[in-house]
Amino acid sequence: MTLDLVLIGFGNVAQRFAALLDEQRDALARDHDLRVRIVGIATRRHGCAHGSRAVSALRRDHGRVHGPAVAGPHVLSFLREALKRSAAAAQQRRLVVVETTTLDIERGEPATSHIRVALGGGAHAVTANKGPVACAYGALARAAARADRRFLFEGAVMDGVPIFNLVRETLPAVRVIGFRGVVNSTTNFMLTAMEKGRGFDEALAEMQQRGIAEADASLDIDGWDAAAKAAALANVLLQANITPRDVDRRGIAPHTGRLARRAKSAGRRLKLVASARRDRRRIVARVALEELSGDDLLAGVEGQQNALILETDLLEEIAIVQRSGGLTQTAYALLADVITIARDLTAPRARRRSPTAAPRSRTP
Amino acid sequence: MTLDLVLIGFGNVAQRFAALLDEQRDALARDHDLRVRIVGIATRRHGCAHGSRAVSALRRDHGRVHGPAVAGPHVLSFLREALKRSAAAAQQRRLVVVETTTLDIERGEPATSHIRVALGGGAHAVTANKGPVACAYGALARAAARADRRFLFEGAVMDGVPIFNLVRETLPAVRVIGFRGVVNSTTNFMLTAMEKGRGFDEALAEMQQRGIAEADASLDIDGWDAAAKAAALANVLLQANITPRDVDRRGIAPHTGRLARRAKSAGRRLKLVASARRDRRRIVARVALEELSGDDLLAGVEGQQNALILETDLLEEIAIVQRSGGLTQTAYALLADVITIARDLTAPRARRRSPTAAPRSRTP
Repeated sequence: MTLDLVLIGFGNVAQRFAALLDEQRDALARDHDLRVRIVGIATRRHGCAHGSRAVSALRRDHGRVHGPAVAGPHVLSFLREALKRSAAAAQQRRLVVVETTTLDIERGEPATSHIRVALGGGAHAVTANKGPVACAYGALARAAARADRRFLFEGAVMDGVPIFNLVRETLPAVRVIGFRGVVNSTTNFMLTAMEKGRGFDEALAEMQQRGIAEADASLDIDGWDAAAKAAALANVLLQANITPRDVDRRGIAPHTGRLARRAKSAGRRLKLVASARRDRRRIVARVALEELSGDDLLAGVEGQQNALILETDLLEEIAIVQRSGGLTQTAYALLADVITIARDLTAPRARRRSPTAAPRSRTP
Repeated sequence: MTLDLVLIGFGNVAQRFAALLDEQRDALARDHDLRVRIVGIATRRHGCAHGSRAVSALRRDHGRVHGPAVAGPHVLSFLREALKRSAAAAQQRRLVVVETTTLDIERGEPATSHIRVALGGGAHAVTANKGPVACAYGALARAAARADRRFLFEGAVMDGVPIFNLVRETLPAVRVIGFRGVVNSTTNFMLTAMEKGRGFDEALAEMQQRGIAEADASLDIDGWDAAAKAAALANVLLQANITPRDVDRRGIAPHTGRLARRAKSAGRRLKLVASARRDRRRIVARVALEELSGDDLLAGVEGQQNALILETDLLEEIAIVQRSGGLTQTAYALLADVITIARDLTAPRARRRSPTAAPRSRTP
């Protein structure tokens, strides 16, 4: 089977994703009977490209450019044109729009509009952007249901580590009651560094140099990124209908270092914890500095690691920990979502073959 | 859709599973369009039952019996007879044999024979038993492929916490290179207790009283249970073809308490770690006492908790932590596997509806 992809945004994540598709070409064919073609790319700085030749030229010229992603009305026109050109693939459920534009965290735009137009045009929509699911999940989920297409966003919270797929695919009949987690790498790195006596500005500068902090650092340190992730998780896992502004939000500041050191010296750890739970019919979501006892699983989450603890009815607590995150992991999340779409198109019987594949050789 | 179940073994786990099916009846119908009927039960102590009336009588009479599970040749005859009676359901891929008999950890019997006969008779096979996948995974996976039926065993390692489903369903295109984990609750509880100065025998007695330790405690303290889990994980995740006897195995003993206290006082933790990784073409699997630095994720796994760290190519390390385990969690693992089978039988389009279900109401 062949999926046709239109990339909206061609910054670092999308470029790594395109490279990953090349690296995984043989494995995708062998394990999933899947071929993936990029048939269009929209960039803000370097224009848009339809068709394989134009796409190749754009990838060749700008594969190393660290340009910001695309935005603005001309991108929507490009997207509409691309959906028209690929109408046959859309009709066959083989068209996927991959959205990776820069985020306006408060409004979730322009990503939300791109996804709405993509679904309306019969494409599946995949994004690594937390904006759409944090700000407009309900509307987009309904649009996807109406269009009978997938809207997937595994990369929105913990890069490639499965959260949404984990709950959807592997926890049937389990009800998530609440969650708490350390979900922002920049602030967790800074808290860990400040515990050891390093300064706020110095720790932040390191995260910016290493490309981990958001371009606008206040999104990290004021807790906006964590609030967006809390809203995204609450919307999907707790059937909430909130936005990042509905999250009771705190961040970290230079004086936080003193609190972190005091906690550490008492065998405790100061962490920026994102959480939500259902309180009667309301969802209470917040991002707060919490002083955790040393044996709390979240207390042991060091540096750039992330962790999420799901509270469930049947399984009580399950935790998943991301030990390393980066561009490849985010790109992988997009790939995992694309494979999910491909699996939908495969007959269930064929799907069943690979999981129970017999071992290759005896290697005791 | 209706699935017909034959239960082989009706001890604590199977009884909790049968009760869970009742509790989840409405949710299964609503969320998965699934009805589940128990059409046969084989027990060692209380005989076997075919048909809904006999099954009801057996469940009513022995629902509270803590009897050991079934075994012996008469169970195989019962199973063959049950497969014949349900030949139509088997033909329609609607028949599932749920295997929960007591484990012979070295040979994986009688569970392995039960599963082989079930698959040969056109049934899917589901088990919470680590024996078959630890001792005979290759042969059973091939039998399942030949029969074009599912062989599932989510409960074999960490009760209901998804491990095998996690890798199969949510990590497409990711290659697992190795793993390390704390997978035996009894020894981890004992190590944690001995760190605090409690005695070996006292800690073991508590685990036996609480029904966590194996009936034959040497299976836990000599590392056999952990070795079987290591073999199961290696067979499935690393395509090994080993048995528990191929695992380099150590256990814990009364003098281990002194080592655990010494490690703790130095800010380190002593843990019984099960691990495996590919070394060129060989699989090196072991269960060993390891003194871990305090910031190792496994060092923070307290009491009866379990944790598994997967080392992968694309996502580097991912960890999943089971914060509480018990009868309900193991029973849930069986239910999750039954739902996986039901999902196979559903058209992909229908499957797609529920995941993107729109939020029910606005609850900011």
